[in-house]
Amino acid sequence: MALPASLLMDLVLANRILANEGVLDSFGHVSIRDPGHPDRFHLSRARAPALVEPGDILEFDLDGEPAVRSEHRVFAERVIHGSIYRTRPDVTAVCHHHAPSMLPFCVTLVRLEPVFHLGATMGDTVPVWDSQDEFGDTNLLVATQAQGHSLARALGGNWTVLMRRHGATVAGRNVRELVFRTIYGARNADIQSRAMLLGTVTPLTLAERKAAGEFNLTPIALDRAWEQWTCGVVPIA
Amino acid sequence: MALPASLLMDLVLANRILANEGVLDSFGHVSIRDPGHPDRFHLSRARAPALVEPGDILEFDLDGEPAVRSEHRVFAERVIHGSIYRTRPDVTAVCHHHAPSMLPFCVTLVRLEPVFHLGATMGDTVPVWDSQDEFGDTNLLVATQAQGHSLARALGGNWTVLMRRHGATVAGRNVRELVFRTIYGARNADIQSRAMLLGTVTPLTLAERKAAGEFNLTPIALDRAWEQWTCGVVPIA
Amino acid sequence: MALPASLLMDLVLANRILANEGVLDSFGHVSIRDPGHPDRFHLSRARAPALVEPGDILEFDLDGEPAVRSEHRVFAERVIHGSIYRTRPDVTAVCHHHAPSMLPFCVTLVRLEPVFHLGATMGDTVPVWDSQDEFGDTNLLVATQAQGHSLARALGGNWTVLMRRHGATVAGRNVRELVFRTIYGARNADIQSRAMLLGTVTPLTLAERKAAGEFNLTPIALDRAWEQWTCGVVPIA
Amino acid sequence: MALPASLLMDLVLANRILANEGVLDSFGHVSIRDPGHPDRFHLSRARAPALVEPGDILEFDLDGEPAVRSEHRVFAERVIHGSIYRTRPDVTAVCHHHAPSMLPFCVTLVRLEPVFHLGATMGDTVPVWDSQDEFGDTNLLVATQAQGHSLARALGGNWTVLMRRHGATVAGRNVRELVFRTIYGARNADIQSRAMLLGTVTPLTLAERKAAGEFNLTPIALDRAWEQWTCGVVPIA
Repeated sequence: MALPASLLMDLVLANRILANEGVLDSFGHVSIRDPGHPDRFHLSRARAPALVEPGDILEFDLDGEPAVRSEHRVFAERVIHGSIYRTRPDVTAVCHHHAPSMLPFCVTLVRLEPVFHLGATMGDTVPVWDSQDEFGDTNLLVATQAQGHSLARALGGNWTVLMRRHGATVAGRNVRELVFRTIYGARNADIQSRAMLLGTVTPLTLAERKAAGEFNLTPIALDRAWEQWTCGVVPIA
Repeated sequence: MALPASLLMDLVLANRILANEGVLDSFGHVSIRDPGHPDRFHLSRARAPALVEPGDILEFDLDGEPAVRSEHRVFAERVIHGSIYRTRPDVTAVCHHHAPSMLPFCVTLVRLEPVFHLGATMGDTVPVWDSQDEFGDTNLLVATQAQGHSLARALGGNWTVLMRRHGATVAGRNVRELVFRTIYGARNADIQSRAMLLGTVTPLTLAERKAAGEFNLTPIALDRAWEQWTCGVVPIA
Repeated sequence: MALPASLLMDLVLANRILANEGVLDSFGHVSIRDPGHPDRFHLSRARAPALVEPGDILEFDLDGEPAVRSEHRVFAERVIHGSIYRTRPDVTAVCHHHAPSMLPFCVTLVRLEPVFHLGATMGDTVPVWDSQDEFGDTNLLVATQAQGHSLARALGGNWTVLMRRHGATVAGRNVRELVFRTIYGARNADIQSRAMLLGTVTPLTLAERKAAGEFNLTPIALDRAWEQWTCGVVPIA
Repeated sequence: MALPASLLMDLVLANRILANEGVLDSFGHVSIRDPGHPDRFHLSRARAPALVEPGDILEFDLDGEPAVRSEHRVFAERVIHGSIYRTRPDVTAVCHHHAPSMLPFCVTLVRLEPVFHLGATMGDTVPVWDSQDEFGDTNLLVATQAQGHSLARALGGNWTVLMRRHGATVAGRNVRELVFRTIYGARNADIQSRAMLLGTVTPLTLAERKAAGEFNLTPIALDRAWEQWTCGVVPIA
């Protein structure tokens, strides 16, 4: 089924915004679950997010198989999306990325934690997944059903999961929430990194994480950011 | 009362300049006290600063209540502005922000200090406010009268106050001074951070802070910066 | 012989892309081996890479002598290219650069290692060459046949070699592979540097390096990046 | 006397280039000695360098007094230029700046040293001047003849002098050399800073500094950079 026009537009915008804000480069991807068919999701063909257009969006089942045969190349890691949609009924949007600010937390044992109110939206706890634990030496991509399920288990009930020597995957109850969480998760990582060089970092208390994390997703905050982000990207033809 | 046209223009420019110079992103806000009615101030409706237009500016009383009912969303933290205007008659412009270079000083116990002449304008002493001290676990926003007054007390007679796990608030005797102080306060934080990684930092003496801080606000310096900053932003329609 | 039109286009694009992505500034250069005459290579006249046009590309023999006399200035370091083409028949493209993220590894004794999957393409091992070892005090340029051969020996069978107090040289089996390796080698250096400030870095295992390094060069990854990079540069007139 | 047209153009370009390359912001300035009257120099009226136009250039004597009375504001620190031209007959161009990458070396006791070949052009030794030593507490500006002469003595026969808690001043035998030295001095500072965080830094030997520093100023290098830098700035009307 075609994604409703407004959701399709949001998905294309999400691709361009995340590229424009420096979270995605040539790689990484964003998907939306089909609102009418929860066992389907929509994701671009294999293309750099900054260039994604409405016609690039394809439909997949939860195994990551294309709903319709096409000649387009598809992302090797589409199982990330299917696996999370399968285990998390509350999730309707997923992003996988390699933001430079987050990578240092993927290649050291330092925990990523919310250190300012906007960062709290990444989730109060950020688990870490290591492909070595179950799969040993690989090319680090999450490309099989088993790998996708393993990653989804590591995410658990959280919103962001780090992937060692690779990147991060983020979930949202809707695509705008997802974009906010992804961008401010990356900025939180940047601020935490800089602060750790100065001295001992005092992160948010658990109660602060919950309260701030929720507030940032209310329309007064989320709509404000979304309006600005859309003004920063190439309009959709 | 409508703000005089030249002040309205400066307030809109201040929003766009602070966004363009990387101090404000989708969040943060700037206000001006009404020159004819010192118990009123002018602040944008809840909108990303880069997008603010003259028609977005609303009038508020010192409790942060809109002077005229409107359907526009208003910033949750407008009490920051009202509380400072109430306790500081010398202040006619206020900015609240989350500049990335300042955040490390909000999440560690390291003191922010003027380390170069242009940074001295942020004030010789930069106090720190922690919402935990009086209010315990919150969503970190300054949203009640009590929180606003507490923050204003922490600012005291200074020009910049850091807010732990949140950001900073800056005051000015006029809006151009405010913009200069905000931008070079953020740059001072960046330079101090970088320098601390190399070795022991030797900040300005107290007398240097006072002398340099004043000089930077004379027309020969301030007008030069303002001319450049306005050239960098989208002209006001 | 003139380079085939599509290769000529790729060589000009490689120059502009590497400048646009921040790897090359006014200095550095990229070459392609002539597909019909493996003892010849093509390289711009001495010009900043961002400005290179098809008419700037000149032909050289493996000693770095121009195939045709011209009045154009030529790069002092063209022997880097000839020397590597001579010792590495599998290499058809070479880049020499001074990317800011790589320089810290050229002026300390810290080893550069793949720390995330995309960085693995720079090669599993990155050797280091020091002009002092064989040539003592110089202006640090690789300008003689002896210096070129020494550098090529240091590169050996690897893909990237660091040059102490100077920069790096990168080899590829084709020019698009070369560009990918150069860009993600520089990004790997950036991430490794940032991570080392946080704690102990755990790089890829050797098997991960080999598997990820190969995958990134398959068309599904390489074409995606190339499409985006070309969209970011000034079209070739 | 009016500056010859080609030198006037170069001076305006130097202003815009140094702003575009991130060395100058709203502050800092560049001058050229009058080729026909070595006791005169040309410098913009007090204006942000990015905005300087040919009509903004004024003539000064070596005390920093305007040759012709005008209503234009002039830089408080024009004595920096006059003092250096007086003590250094070989110098025909001077730049004063506050580049963010250099400031950490102005607020710690860490020595700035050439760490890569392009950085060698800033000079083999970079002395440091502290206004406290002779003048005690000031606003940190170099605004009197005595302060200018003190700074010029600290520069001595070198090419770059750091000014504690303030910035740097750079001299050149011509304006293009000056621009190169200023830009790559700032980049050297950035690389040295980053490298120091990783481990012990091994700078260039003295002989390498001399050899590389000279080579970078030969036309094959300098013209290449100048062509690119001019392409990056707004053309002069």
